[in-house]
Amino acid sequence: MDSLKEITGWVSNVKVLGRIAFIEVIDELNLSPVTVVVRRENDSSIWGLASKMKLGAAVKIRGTEPRQIISKKGRELHAEDINILGEPLEIFPIDVTGKTPASSDDYINYRYLALRLPRIRAIFIARSLLLQETRNFLLSRGFLEVNTPKIVKAGAEGGATLFVVDYFGEKAYLAQSPQLYKQMLMCGVPKVFEIGPFFRAEKFSTTRHLNEGWGLDVEMGFINSMNDILSLLEELIIHLNKKLIDTLGDRLKGLGFNVIEEVKRIPRITYEEAMNILNSNGFQLRWGEDFDPKAEKFLGEYFQANGTPAYFIVEYPWETKPFYIMRKELGKSHSFDLDIRGIEVASGGQREHRYDELYRNLVDKGLDPSDFKFYLDAFKYGMPPHGGFGLGLDRLIMVFLGLQNIREAVLFPRDRFRLVP
Amino acid sequence: MDSLKEITGWVSNVKVLGRIAFIEVIDELNLSPVTVVVRRENDSSIWGLASKMKLGAAVKIRGTEPRQIISKKGRELHAEDINILGEPLEIFPIDVTGKTPASSDDYINYRYLALRLPRIRAIFIARSLLLQETRNFLLSRGFLEVNTPKIVKAGAEGGATLFVVDYFGEKAYLAQSPQLYKQMLMCGVPKVFEIGPFFRAEKFSTTRHLNEGWGLDVEMGFINSMNDILSLLEELIIHLNKKLIDTLGDRLKGLGFNVIEEVKRIPRITYEEAMNILNSNGFQLRWGEDFDPKAEKFLGEYFQANGTPAYFIVEYPWETKPFYIMRKELGKSHSFDLDIRGIEVASGGQREHRYDELYRNLVDKGLDPSDFKFYLDAFKYGMPPHGGFGLGLDRLIMVFLGLQNIREAVLFPRDRFRLVP
Repeated sequence: MDSLKEITGWVSNVKVLGRIAFIEVIDELNLSPVTVVVRRENDSSIWGLASKMKLGAAVKIRGTEPRQIISKKGRELHAEDINILGEPLEIFPIDVTGKTPASSDDYINYRYLALRLPRIRAIFIARSLLLQETRNFLLSRGFLEVNTPKIVKAGAEGGATLFVVDYFGEKAYLAQSPQLYKQMLMCGVPKVFEIGPFFRAEKFSTTRHLNEGWGLDVEMGFINSMNDILSLLEELIIHLNKKLIDTLGDRLKGLGFNVIEEVKRIPRITYEEAMNILNSNGFQLRWGEDFDPKAEKFLGEYFQANGTPAYFIVEYPWETKPFYIMRKELGKSHSFDLDIRGIEVASGGQREHRYDELYRNLVDKGLDPSDFKFYLDAFKYGMPPHGGFGLGLDRLIMVFLGLQNIREAVLFPRDRFRLVP
Repeated sequence: MDSLKEITGWVSNVKVLGRIAFIEVIDELNLSPVTVVVRRENDSSIWGLASKMKLGAAVKIRGTEPRQIISKKGRELHAEDINILGEPLEIFPIDVTGKTPASSDDYINYRYLALRLPRIRAIFIARSLLLQETRNFLLSRGFLEVNTPKIVKAGAEGGATLFVVDYFGEKAYLAQSPQLYKQMLMCGVPKVFEIGPFFRAEKFSTTRHLNEGWGLDVEMGFINSMNDILSLLEELIIHLNKKLIDTLGDRLKGLGFNVIEEVKRIPRITYEEAMNILNSNGFQLRWGEDFDPKAEKFLGEYFQANGTPAYFIVEYPWETKPFYIMRKELGKSHSFDLDIRGIEVASGGQREHRYDELYRNLVDKGLDPSDFKFYLDAFKYGMPPHGGFGLGLDRLIMVFLGLQNIREAVLFPRDRFRLVP
């Protein structure tokens, strides 16, 4: 017996060859269409609908899955009933057959139509998978998921890059990160994480920055040293990398993505070692300078040539890092960045948990401790050593899938020139 | 053999009785402390630390778990090594032994300290559980997790209750909900959900409203009718209710929570039926009026007396609902609210998916369709029938745990008078 089935989705191709019609429908969250076959000798009302089917219509089709397929493509359905649920009213602004590429702007303006194209749809399926696997990993390690406020009175890193909100007549900001909150929580629960939006009013115009993004924030108390954080993040990345490859790797490659290879370990080099590598290769960096995208790109290629797409750069000069990072001898700090494929994906370190030192750090960074009273208070009541990291989820998806622009990883990206849709 | 163990946490009680010290430590994410036992005849350095142990200190303690406990409480550890990792610097603003209750304001101001108290800690463990179980349920049903922008150009329901953001000199708003975005996505993927923050600039001062909250938004395409949405939400609530009771029910009751009973089904009554019940019981409501909290409370008690804490009220007058809700005959609409224990927890319905009707709805609600162009466009390219709901996660936790104030369900709540911490 052929088995009866009902599919719903959008028509992504129509071909009528004499007495037989082939209607391709992208259904459910599939990454390739099902071919619906209609023969003229069938019920004439079905043939009437099929032969005049509009590209892009939303349809519900009942039929049988044949034992032998005739369309020479993956899945096939022989229609017994066709229902048009949403009729297109206008010429489509992008080609939903996928044959003619649209501009990257139109893929954003008409994101919903782009999502019918397997290549773009796959990005957001990968994104959904990585979000849930991140949580599965951290929950299995005893982390508590928390939600911290996005409208805040104090920014984590000073005022220059904050969006201003009018909060009932009071000046407030959109949170750049949950940094202060996740640290305060370290005085009451041992391990927390949050996945949520963050906001940065920086006037970037690059392929790797957005003004609104989604981030993972992790904070872990009672650590012995920063190594506990590096190990946790290494295991998380290896877990996510493996889940992506196992679940979607082949299909993503089939769709043309330059998918990241298996990550087996994440080596650690110091800022100083990284600088030496760069300076032996034509760069002229001085201690205390941050690495620019060109330098990051070079390091990415350097490590790639050594067989690893991911690496930690540790012990940055304290002057390049925020006030809450713990100092180390000789102007260094207990800090790290995680770079993947030459792009910074995460940043973290051990925090200063000693009240007096933290107060001094604020002053040394030119910040006013009285702005941070609610945060500093938490360091008076038995704050354990702790550390953590912030990870850009949009960037992670970008580097895992080999996307050229972070806007491809975000449904409705926000940049200086884009507030709609 | 006694087994060796290391614990980390905060000292929540210290008792020294002659030659023996009992130190209670709230460790990991546990809901009751472990009792650390130290005897004077032990290594004198440990006794020195133990007998002078400060309440509230962050500690790491290594020891053995005895086969027989002497403290007459749940878990016990006989200390072999004590490490003080975070020393309290000041008198605690709330009693971390939990014996003297603090004000609800202080539980928020010092949320990190409150989190050491089993009763408050339990709320946020329940919250973390319910968040993940919500996602597990929806992902297993083929929903795609999405993230939509929080800085937006158009509000979903008009301008009065929007927070204003300065977006590089352009006037923007904080999203009240993902409503417009999740609907647009229905023209490209069949089912989506989002868990994220929402923002409402309403000048409420109640126990059930906040100006920033976390919500679940669900949208499902290709539906036959609103019943598909009601069934989905019913199953979700039954799933979450069961997971909460199975995982934490006994412990929550032991901590004094008025935990919700098992939800087996969620009955549906119409707005008109609900109004008749109310008007037969002393209320004087006219058709077209919304139910106020007093009426909701009465209905909650009415249904509770009939054995169910949760119920749907369906078919509200269209005039009380937003423009995107589909009309029904006689001024009614394809809409519903989910009330639990007399409090509205979710709201949803079938959406108007026909372009011309939707345009008319906007005009009839006094909105300017040109403000919604990017949204309306999505209805031109094969938009299927769809529906969904928005659910307040803070409220869900409130009614599931029987909390008196929504602020208890949120780590750092935001209301008109609270922007810090």
